[in-house]
Amino acid sequence: MLELVIGNKNYSSWSMRPWVVLTQAAIPFTERKLRFDGFEPDSAFKRAITAIHPAGCVPVLIDGPLVIADTLAICEYLAEQFPDRQLWPAESAARAQARSAVAQMHSGFGGLRSALPMNIEAQLPEVGARLLASDERLRADLARLFGLWRSLLERSGGPLLFGAFSVADAFYAPVVMRLLSYGVPVPDDLRGYVQAVQQQPGVQAWVRDALSEHDFIAFEEPYRQAPAKA
Amino acid sequence: MLELVIGNKNYSSWSMRPWVVLTQAAIPFTERKLRFDGFEPDSAFKRAITAIHPAGCVPVLIDGPLVIADTLAICEYLAEQFPDRQLWPAESAARAQARSAVAQMHSGFGGLRSALPMNIEAQLPEVGARLLASDERLRADLARLFGLWRSLLERSGGPLLFGAFSVADAFYAPVVMRLLSYGVPVPDDLRGYVQAVQQQPGVQAWVRDALSEHDFIAFEEPYRQAPAKA
Repeated sequence: MLELVIGNKNYSSWSMRPWVVLTQAAIPFTERKLRFDGFEPDSAFKRAITAIHPAGCVPVLIDGPLVIADTLAICEYLAEQFPDRQLWPAESAARAQARSAVAQMHSGFGGLRSALPMNIEAQLPEVGARLLASDERLRADLARLFGLWRSLLERSGGPLLFGAFSVADAFYAPVVMRLLSYGVPVPDDLRGYVQAVQQQPGVQAWVRDALSEHDFIAFEEPYRQAPAKA
Repeated sequence: MLELVIGNKNYSSWSMRPWVVLTQAAIPFTERKLRFDGFEPDSAFKRAITAIHPAGCVPVLIDGPLVIADTLAICEYLAEQFPDRQLWPAESAARAQARSAVAQMHSGFGGLRSALPMNIEAQLPEVGARLLASDERLRADLARLFGLWRSLLERSGGPLLFGAFSVADAFYAPVVMRLLSYGVPVPDDLRGYVQAVQQQPGVQAWVRDALSEHDFIAFEEPYRQAPAKA
């Protein structure tokens, strides 16, 4: 049985991606959650994840003796192991564009990722409005994001980036979560895509788990105060 | 004919990777070099690359109507289009580890990449020594890098990470360039790997071009002064 090692579901956007792929594709797996107590070398999280893989980051996929670090490498492995699930588009040029979209997210969109950390349970539209007004890098990343989605959806006809669900949608699912949490206005022609991502069963299952976590991690929260102790 | 759009060969580590793959695998291609005059939106570089692909970064691969952004997506496309070149290891578990090593470089090693920008013609061992003494993130990245190389070489037996040349070596070739430029001490058991990377014909061809460029770009040079005008 495959095992996926993940972090807190409310916060860990990198963990969300392969978890959504596995769930969406109905690939049997177990999850092992390592709580984000901290990212310092002596934190329980870092000690546990480094013992699993020296890269020291979630997610990690364990398949018997094979221990694979990194979201993208995990998704490529799953696509190879389960070809019937069609995790990449079937057509060569579309597959190249899907990998390009995924790779752009994997190493880029730093302005978006740093300004709007994933926080599924948070509702922070006033923070989003303030950042949109003040943060030029964020605005540039959003313009590029919307342009990328638009060009792919125009080519495929939707409802997802390449028609049916693919790894590319899993890679952008945490971005959809950010747009919702921070109340970022989405252009009219892209609202259908945002809704379609939200409606994917794998995304809904992750969000349900994230909302039931109730685990406020202060260093993941640049914009909220810790709730009062009950 | 494939066309690869790249930046300055002395500096552009992301351009180097697919160029080395193409050259090493003897895949016919033409290159189009866009000089790094600046990365601001109104620089000639940004205007030219954004007209080619909205991601606005090199490298970009052009194959007829298909325009692919991102080094990793380009390498995956080449591996699919030229299966006889065996750009990934043939065995499934090794291929998963190769993709993991590549993905870790693609989105990580930020301490190494920011402290030691690629600068092939530079010889800056005193800068390297100073940074190694003062920069904890750099030291941690180097320890992880050497551990990753060691574990892969132990498994494959070398001389390259997965025995024969693969995309993984192309991804770490710019790292080898950095180690050499900044005089970073390489553990005895890994010196053979560093030499093997240097000796790859694709790497030698890129280095030769980089050394003949003589194009000092001030914003890529945190550690050197511009040469006096002749």
